[in-house]
Amino acid sequence: MTRSYAILGTGAIGGFYGAKLQRAGFDVHFLLRSDYEYAKRRGLVVESIDGDITLPEIQAYNQSQDIPNCDVVVIALKTTHNHQLSELLIPFTKSNSILLILQNGLGVEPEVAKIAPNQTILGGLCFICSNKVGKGRIRHIDYGAITLGGYAKQYQPAGITDELHQIAEDFTQAGIGIETSENLLLTRWKKLVWNIPYNSLSVILDARTDELMQDSATRILVEEIMQEVVLGAAACDRTISQAFVDKMLTHTEKMKPYLTSMKLDFNHKRPLEIDAILGNPLRMAAESGQHLPRIETLYRQLQFLDQQNRDQ
Amino acid sequence: MTRSYAILGTGAIGGFYGAKLQRAGFDVHFLLRSDYEYAKRRGLVVESIDGDITLPEIQAYNQSQDIPNCDVVVIALKTTHNHQLSELLIPFTKSNSILLILQNGLGVEPEVAKIAPNQTILGGLCFICSNKVGKGRIRHIDYGAITLGGYAKQYQPAGITDELHQIAEDFTQAGIGIETSENLLLTRWKKLVWNIPYNSLSVILDARTDELMQDSATRILVEEIMQEVVLGAAACDRTISQAFVDKMLTHTEKMKPYLTSMKLDFNHKRPLEIDAILGNPLRMAAESGQHLPRIETLYRQLQFLDQQNRDQ
Repeated sequence: MTRSYAILGTGAIGGFYGAKLQRAGFDVHFLLRSDYEYAKRRGLVVESIDGDITLPEIQAYNQSQDIPNCDVVVIALKTTHNHQLSELLIPFTKSNSILLILQNGLGVEPEVAKIAPNQTILGGLCFICSNKVGKGRIRHIDYGAITLGGYAKQYQPAGITDELHQIAEDFTQAGIGIETSENLLLTRWKKLVWNIPYNSLSVILDARTDELMQDSATRILVEEIMQEVVLGAAACDRTISQAFVDKMLTHTEKMKPYLTSMKLDFNHKRPLEIDAILGNPLRMAAESGQHLPRIETLYRQLQFLDQQNRDQ
Repeated sequence: MTRSYAILGTGAIGGFYGAKLQRAGFDVHFLLRSDYEYAKRRGLVVESIDGDITLPEIQAYNQSQDIPNCDVVVIALKTTHNHQLSELLIPFTKSNSILLILQNGLGVEPEVAKIAPNQTILGGLCFICSNKVGKGRIRHIDYGAITLGGYAKQYQPAGITDELHQIAEDFTQAGIGIETSENLLLTRWKKLVWNIPYNSLSVILDARTDELMQDSATRILVEEIMQEVVLGAAACDRTISQAFVDKMLTHTEKMKPYLTSMKLDFNHKRPLEIDAILGNPLRMAAESGQHLPRIETLYRQLQFLDQQNRDQ
């Protein structure tokens, strides 16, 4: 039996992975908002560097209660819409669906665990450059792998469970690169090593990654911020090595010029994912007595810019 | 005998105070660069909230060696031109001119002391909103007082010397509000309590002072940065009270919307005074083992923006 998937949020992430799963023969149900009417008639297109995916028909919904019970519910909303989560998840808390959170940042798994205390929760970190470029249209620019990890209460290391393994197999079958993590919190902090400096500075300084790496002042600042992320992880008993920091730096130096997802959100006047990416990590570190003054500074600067951007 | 004054740098600061001194009957000599030809023919105008000052004729020079010996040499360049200081001061190091530094930030007095080790050096902090608005034309918008202090080696408190007293009298006679400080370094750090957060954030966030105070995130950030300035001062054995910080905050809340001098420089694509206002205080605090991570973050952000701004 092939597993069924509900995709909550058919944007750059949900649209891309959902389309890959449907093409591989899985039973996929897409929740859409503004694109609902369009996608119901015309389906979904992913323009991808790996070859385009054209789905002339998809199972489209504009409210989650219309979606049938699914084995797996993929939460792929922007975190800025997470206030809708408890309502969106109601239909699935009556079942035993596995909940897979494909979002940035920290702290969403415990939120979902409050809404669905008895269900299996997994987290996935997407290493991907993709954007929604039009109605029912996603552009996949680079990368695409996911690191999957199980969630246990308060982010205790959860090992590799059967459910995790099964979903990893489905995704692999759909042509998605998968790594699994026994320690979801460590994996999330590691992703923040990249996400916090580049997302924040790209918005605050109106800069691409290559510009940030070429300027000697921001090159130092990026690394100083990464070191604060390492401190935050350490406060949560998760160890990130200097070698990993170095790898992120050299990797980014070699990347083609890249506008971060937060910068794209900013340019399109969408709300920024600053709470998931900066606020929650700051709070988690502070609960362990660790203050991260540089990241706090970025957080407050971004709150200001986000507010101004949406007031305009 | 009335004292003679050389004004090195006839901009928003030097032009304003020089014009006031000349109007009061002092013998004033102005060094100009781009405005030299104009001012030589047409003089200098200060449009001031306190009543305009029109000087149809001034003693204008375009190189400092042409200026006759003066009792007082007022250094009123932007700090970004301080690499020219040793050359500009050559003619005056052969005399016993008093050197008065009317500049922002920290660390210029020791530089001048290296150039002129045997001369009296005074520092002045100008609390003024004024801009150069055209050739030979300065607009004085608000305030105008100066706090004067004597410089002794390594910023030791220098007391109120006779020279300081005499210059204070001249300025008072010219209608300039004067306070004197026995502790120049403390006074400079106190001014940084205002200058560092507002100048930096106005450029980084493209914001006026009122916008920074109305937004709850930047309101907190401004105060956190002020607290770091207080720590920097403490590392230099200078105590700034919480009451002073509170006064700066409430004062700024009541001020009319204000573009800082650094923001004006930025908008006009002039180099920013980031070394005098942030770099030197950071270095001075670090020499005493005190790191100021928020101010460091601002410093690196400003270095990036300054560079980009001038590359354009």
